Amino acid sequence: MKTDNKAPGSEPKILVPIAQGSEEMEAVIAIDVLRRAGMDVCVAAVGELNTRCSRDVVIQADITLSELAAQDWDLILLPGGMPGAKHLSESEHLLELLEAQLKQGRWLAAICAAPEVVLARAGLIADKVATCHPGFQQQLATQVAELSLDRVVVDGNLVTSQGPGTAFEFALTLVELLKGPALRLELEKAMVIR
Amino acid sequence: MKTDNKAPGSEPKILVPIAQGSEEMEAVIAIDVLRRAGMDVCVAAVGELNTRCSRDVVIQADITLSELAAQDWDLILLPGGMPGAKHLSESEHLLELLEAQLKQGRWLAAICAAPEVVLARAGLIADKVATCHPGFQQQLATQVAELSLDRVVVDGNLVTSQGPGTAFEFALTLVELLKGPALRLELEKAMVIR
Repeated sequence: MKTDNKAPGSEPKILVPIAQGSEEMEAVIAIDVLRRAGMDVCVAAVGELNTRCSRDVVIQADITLSELAAQDWDLILLPGGMPGAKHLSESEHLLELLEAQLKQGRWLAAICAAPEVVLARAGLIADKVATCHPGFQQQLATQVAELSLDRVVVDGNLVTSQGPGTAFEFALTLVELLKGPALRLELEKAMVIR
Repeated sequence: MKTDNKAPGSEPKILVPIAQGSEEMEAVIAIDVLRRAGMDVCVAAVGELNTRCSRDVVIQADITLSELAAQDWDLILLPGGMPGAKHLSESEHLLELLEAQLKQGRWLAAICAAPEVVLARAGLIADKVATCHPGFQQQLATQVAELSLDRVVVDGNLVTSQGPGTAFEFALTLVELLKGPALRLELEKAMVIR
């Protein structure tokens, strides 16, 4: 048996919630890159399993959030897009998971509208340095310890980023944080990032 | 009535065929960016409507290729991914559309494995300059007039590109070719490309 042939349970477990109006590029880039990194990614729909995203791409989630058994996630990652982020923010179930994730010191990541619309509006990241899509930065600035204009921002266990054009950097930063810089470089090469 | 309020039929009509094992980032980035540009994009499944892509993202296509009425497309765009590109290459119906597209001087675009596995192996681009994923470049070089190592290559009505990491540049080049450089710049800003 090869030593790199790990049991599924030994890989980081990732939850990616999506909702009607989520930004499909941000969701799919994160899911795909983290799966290329060997992680165990679960796509959970807040709402219908077949989720119509912001530009009418319909993604069939792996499960609905309501069916999901309680478990610890190494990372919960929120795509942006509107009204997707608003729909995510309306799920009490999801907000409870996000609050627990932060308090327990496990990774939480959000991109585009999600840092402001989901995390900041719920008062979850008042002590954090964070970024988001330029269209939401003015509002975010009043709700966090410090607004950063960097494309990807890591503050403790919170990772935030700005939009579809930063989605690869965002996902690859998470690969580096969870599995190391060598794998990041390997994936960058295979995906022709530069 | 605003002059930019065009009837739906006046927008470029785009066909994006997908198949089991297509690269979901390449498909979704193209679909999303071209729709952001206002184009009329049809996602057609070669095979089942619910298409399981290369990293297990399930995309529900708009229609199956077999149900699609005969019509002229301003652009046909092929995502890569394996075995997605191989499945695309096995559709006689699709190969007929691609051959007609090239002969009629309308836009044809392919990324990653697709330039080699779909277009070159069918003998459709023997007179063209083209690129593809580094893993297929050696084979492509023997089947085209010239292999280019550029990230996006335009030769007449053929546009080719290399992988997920070049998918934004690829889609934005097509926006510029079909709708002009101002819209490209506007979309780059909105998506935080740089």
